[in-house]
This record gives sequence, structure tokens and C-alpha cells, in this order.
Amino acid sequence: MPKAKPFGLSVKALILDGAGRVLLLKRSRESHFYCGQWDLPGGKVDKGEDFATALLREIREETGLRAKLTGLAGVAYDKLPKVRVIILAMTAQRSVGRVRISDEHEEFAWVPQKDLPRWDLSPQVKYILLGFVRKKK
Amino acid sequence: MPKAKPFGLSVKALILDGAGRVLLLKRSRESHFYCGQWDLPGGKVDKGEDFATALLREIREETGLRAKLTGLAGVAYDKLPKVRVIILAMTAQRSVGRVRISDEHEEFAWVPQKDLPRWDLSPQVKYILLGFVRKKK
Repeated sequence: MPKAKPFGLSVKALILDGAGRVLLLKRSRESHFYCGQWDLPGGKVDKGEDFATALLREIREETGLRAKLTGLAGVAYDKLPKVRVIILAMTAQRSVGRVRISDEHEEFAWVPQKDLPRWDLSPQVKYILLGFVRKKK
Repeated sequence: MPKAKPFGLSVKALILDGAGRVLLLKRSRESHFYCGQWDLPGGKVDKGEDFATALLREIREETGLRAKLTGLAGVAYDKLPKVRVIILAMTAQRSVGRVRISDEHEEFAWVPQKDLPRWDLSPQVKYILLGFVRKKK
């Protein structure tokens, strides 16, 4: 029997602006996974790193924003070739700065929550966002 | 305005036996929170510790069992006096050993999933377990 893949933790941020819109980032066409689909800012928790610190770091790297984490948005699960990933999503408020995306993404958009079902979201982000919108109703 | 409380990460295990029953632990009457209510094994992720390592350690400390994590069970949120806690619950399979509880608990029980709604569970564990059972239907 093959050895089970290890578990890793990733974090993602559902950053809301004053109008309740969500910041989405379009994954680069060179991404290994979900290329061209829309994603939330976030990434892997590094070894020894606290999940909240990791998420604020990823937000800064991928959006240029400083943000404040405000609560739990949801959780999802993904199987990648070498790792089973738990994706923990937190709500966040944008505090300072303008959006400046990195090379990992091609575009950004502030999307009203009611429009989210129509966007081409990566599967785990879709699961998290639609669950979040449903729970708020 | 008071400073927002920091976020912490806790992990809990939904350990299943061969018959699909879940291992519950009864919290000690001296517990600071949820005393006397039924809980899942688990606890805080220590600084610098990986969440999966932390959970296997807590399982050993609180139940004497060696277990294998198998997937995601759910997530919940709790506000304690000094910290906002994200509770990440994973499914696990008991592999070796007999249950030996620690001083933190008074009793243990293997509970069929259909009986869980009748047990006096701590609020976040109730949210996680009933969500898990509902999703499997």
C-alpha cells in the first residue's frame, strides 16, 4: 500500500471592502494548478509559521494591501500530487493601500457577493465562497 | 477602541473505530470552559508546531492512542477571554492501543454517529459533529 500523502495547511483571505465586495485574483496562465481561474489571496503556511502571520504576509505579497483578519470564512480540502491540503479561509478588512498584484496573478477584481456564482472560480475557492454567502443569508 | 484579540489555532480529532463510532471525552469538572460537557480529543497548536503533528501529539496525550489522520471533518470558531480560536477538526482512524484518558477528562465513550445529537456536547464540537454527520448523508 502506498504511504498516505502528508497534510499541509494553506490559508486564504476573503478581503471585503466598504461595500462588502470581495477581492478576487486571476491566477496566471503559467500556474501549475487552476491556471486562469479566479482565486483568493493566500498560500502555504511555512514551517514554524503561525497561520495568521502567514496569511497577512501572503496578502501583502499578493495584493500589496495591509489588512486585518476579522473572522472565520470557511474551510476546504484539496488533493495535490504530493500533499493533501487543508485550506483555511478567514475574512479580512482591507485597511491601507492600493491593490498591486504580483507575478502569480494577471488581474484583480472587487466582486459583489451576489455575482460570485457567475465567476470562474477555482474549485476550492468556489466551495468556500458559495458556502460563505449561503451562511450569511 | 480595544485592540482585537489575536487568533489562535486549535485542532481536534474525530477518531472513528471500525464500526464508525466516534470517540468522545468528557471534560473534567475543573475545566475552565465547558466543564462536564463532551468533547473531542485535541488542543492548541503550539508555537512553531505543524497542525498535524500537534493533533497526533494531543491524541496520544489525551487518549493514549496512536492514530492516522484521514481527512477534513470541519471547522468552528470560538471566542475565549484572551484569544479568538479557529478549531480545525480532522477525521482520524484509531490504529494501535487502548484508550487511556488523562486528568483533563473524566470519562470516554465510543458513540454511534446517529446518537450524537442526544449527547451533551460542547458548543463548537456540536457544530462540527452535527455538520459532519449531515454532510455524509
